[in-house]
Amino acid sequence: MRTYFDCYPCFLRQALSAARRVDADDEQIQMVMVEVLDLLHDIPADTTPPEMAYHVHHIVRSEVESEDPYREAKAASTRQALALYPQLVSQVAESEHPLATAIRLSIAGNIIDLAVAEAYDLWQSLTRVLEQPFAIDDRAALRAALADAEFVLFLADNAGETVFDRVLVETLDAPVTYAVKGGPILNDATRDDARAAGLDEVATIVDTGVDAPGTILDLCSQTFQSLFASAPVVIAKGQANYETLSTADPKVFCLLQIKCPVIAQDIGAAVGDIVVRQSHPA
Amino acid sequence: MRTYFDCYPCFLRQALSAARRVDADDEQIQMVMVEVLDLLHDIPADTTPPEMAYHVHHIVRSEVESEDPYREAKAASTRQALALYPQLVSQVAESEHPLATAIRLSIAGNIIDLAVAEAYDLWQSLTRVLEQPFAIDDRAALRAALADAEFVLFLADNAGETVFDRVLVETLDAPVTYAVKGGPILNDATRDDARAAGLDEVATIVDTGVDAPGTILDLCSQTFQSLFASAPVVIAKGQANYETLSTADPKVFCLLQIKCPVIAQDIGAAVGDIVVRQSHPA
Repeated sequence: MRTYFDCYPCFLRQALSAARRVDADDEQIQMVMVEVLDLLHDIPADTTPPEMAYHVHHIVRSEVESEDPYREAKAASTRQALALYPQLVSQVAESEHPLATAIRLSIAGNIIDLAVAEAYDLWQSLTRVLEQPFAIDDRAALRAALADAEFVLFLADNAGETVFDRVLVETLDAPVTYAVKGGPILNDATRDDARAAGLDEVATIVDTGVDAPGTILDLCSQTFQSLFASAPVVIAKGQANYETLSTADPKVFCLLQIKCPVIAQDIGAAVGDIVVRQSHPA
Repeated sequence: MRTYFDCYPCFLRQALSAARRVDADDEQIQMVMVEVLDLLHDIPADTTPPEMAYHVHHIVRSEVESEDPYREAKAASTRQALALYPQLVSQVAESEHPLATAIRLSIAGNIIDLAVAEAYDLWQSLTRVLEQPFAIDDRAALRAALADAEFVLFLADNAGETVFDRVLVETLDAPVTYAVKGGPILNDATRDDARAAGLDEVATIVDTGVDAPGTILDLCSQTFQSLFASAPVVIAKGQANYETLSTADPKVFCLLQIKCPVIAQDIGAAVGDIVVRQSHPA
């Protein structure tokens, strides 16, 4: 998915939000804003939003001299989600359709997204997503793909959401390779964040080899690219993975909540909708 | 009030919204965005948001070749408000405190603001503002200033809001000079918009001499500047007038709803609050 004009204001907002998380002073923020304005000025038309975000957040980190402006926020999200974990496990165990429930719970956790808003209502998301109809529903194709799969490549999204993913990982019949980011970017999960959520107990954790949001294959390590190529089925969580993989191979299934009007328009659904969408060439 | 970093995303959003109102094509929008990015890049630190908006909307109008992208929206707002006019008049007539009610109604109409959002809920604003406490309440000082005034200079804000202002103008005991913008800018009222709301029947309509939002005195005509200097009391409606006159002479009273977090922070109130605030030097 290309970057829309509507994304421009959002990148400035994100940069400001990230800089303020580490108490940047006015001079640092001024430098950040000017560099992001230059970046937007020179953006090639086919850049995806996660590629833009990659550059934006590198500007912030360089100017404010912080390796990870979202560290505390990520730890807090993980703690909050872990407190719910026993309940999530029970919900799946007591469900007539454990896989269906676990898919919904994983999507419910996708509300934890500090790229689109400063805060989120996890409990509201949890109760809503368990009931709400799917705006795009390729769950049958996903189930068919999972039935034959020797293993599942699971592309993580955000810290805290990892705990909800863990419940889905535990419900899948196949071994899972859980891919996080190669370094801190936004509130995306890294190896540390995945381990804090207990994913190392239930999956093989790998990383993309790059600190970019979504899955920008050209930027990923050769090792990750080979893994992606060999995976029989890929579960890709969240908006950034949709933005980078919506036209990928049909073995990719994007599981997400629509949290921004630009993605809503691109995918053909509404803000607040939930989606299981099989990728296909444009 | 200076432009805050948080205003940067907002100007890009406003430019995009204005361009789309006249069905600008992608190439035109690209030109608009690039020029606004350049403007933001070069902004002097002490520029007020209305000065920025003045330049932003001139960029839009020049690129999309439209004199008034908000013409239809303004006409619709005025029609909607005029339909409520008989009810507003009755509310003041039946009130134990007609001036107090008319002040609240004028502030209720300030929800009509296409700079901060694409839509507004006029009815919700009307019922809310009639009841809600003032976050800043200089009404006693305003009443005292009005009691002695030979005339009142009333600085208009947006089309449609004009109808609510008319009810206040009709309630004031002194003659009113109602100042609109010298040309179209955002959904701010011009002479045509004020006449469509019937202000010519109850006030002397003048204009600022410039198509800029708020009251940027340096840009206003000599005639308007003299009028402003000689006015014994000034009622200044809306956020842009607050942004340009918050540190003006104490004869200026800003009547507004807080609709954006930046102004909320600057004024020391919350989004959704209502305010009657006497200006004073910083």
